Amino acid sequence: MANPIELYFDFSSPYGYFATTQIEALAAKHGREVLWRPYLMGAALKVMNAPPNVHYPLKGDYVRHDFARTARWLGVPFKLPQPFPVATVGACRAYYWAEGKNPKRAKELAMALYKAYFVEGIDISDPENVIKVCAGAGLFPEAVRAGMNEPAVKERLKTVTDEALARGIFGSPFIVVDGEQFWGTDRLAQVDRWLAEGGF
Amino acid sequence: MANPIELYFDFSSPYGYFATTQIEALAAKHGREVLWRPYLMGAALKVMNAPPNVHYPLKGDYVRHDFARTARWLGVPFKLPQPFPVATVGACRAYYWAEGKNPKRAKELAMALYKAYFVEGIDISDPENVIKVCAGAGLFPEAVRAGMNEPAVKERLKTVTDEALARGIFGSPFIVVDGEQFWGTDRLAQVDRWLAEGGF
Repeated sequence: MANPIELYFDFSSPYGYFATTQIEALAAKHGREVLWRPYLMGAALKVMNAPPNVHYPLKGDYVRHDFARTARWLGVPFKLPQPFPVATVGACRAYYWAEGKNPKRAKELAMALYKAYFVEGIDISDPENVIKVCAGAGLFPEAVRAGMNEPAVKERLKTVTDEALARGIFGSPFIVVDGEQFWGTDRLAQVDRWLAEGGF
Repeated sequence: MANPIELYFDFSSPYGYFATTQIEALAAKHGREVLWRPYLMGAALKVMNAPPNVHYPLKGDYVRHDFARTARWLGVPFKLPQPFPVATVGACRAYYWAEGKNPKRAKELAMALYKAYFVEGIDISDPENVIKVCAGAGLFPEAVRAGMNEPAVKERLKTVTDEALARGIFGSPFIVVDGEQFWGTDRLAQVDRWLAEGGF
């Protein structure tokens, strides 16, 4: 069995959201599975001493425009929420708790969290909103609430984030194919060729 | 006649170099001309209070790897030069002086400057090296040397750079199609569709 593709993303990243709408079909085309790895990109920004893109002069206005255009380009619904960006610790912890129960359903939960934030404008930095999204995805609210507070779940998110930085991962989406790293939804065409040819 | 496409780039930008190898064929496919607009991207980085990409922790290592991979992806020769990045005031002034003589030949000169820096490793921050490249492209060295010092040429570069910033342009390459702005070689597929459909 070929290595799974790894998809690192931040729940507050529009480009991460876009990648989740594309990666499974791309992987399936090449007979690969995908490991979804939400992490706290803010930890990488801290190491780089860099603000989020939207906080820059010049670049901030551009990326706001590009988010919406790239959504149209891919044909996926999108509306920039307020507040943006937000902290996603709760969303990530809910994800890893759910992944421990059922990895496939956890991906559906991740899609539901992205949809809540980037389509319906629900502030997923609020743990209560995360729990509501989880309930909508078929999880017991009280079980999620308890799961988000499990030390092992908290540790899992910390470990994934620390490992990401140790591997040089800093953005969202960040796609790893057999050790080769690709940053950005706009590298999916390169990922496709890499998978087809085993490198180039 | 449809509006020309505008291509803003910095002579020290690998992605700008890559764009110059692609843009003319793309424009021709849609019956468009291209205005080449080398500018000083450092002025935009100053406004954003941002260092060049290669100076960041994490991102620096990634982009060095991505430069070479994207060159292979596009099938263009590339070797990251030392020093990198460099100041490109002299290269830009030579370009605008040459453009005043013959816009088409000026594009060939721009390609020759990029090739000198990103293929042959010649430090184009040195005005004497710029002059040698110009001589190789068929210009009289003494005419170039004088041209690079003409007040009108210096003013032209300053105006182009100021106008770029005033329009919100901050990266390389930056492509403008009928007022719509696209940042990056990785947006050329979107540019292609925009040209075909008049927007999306």
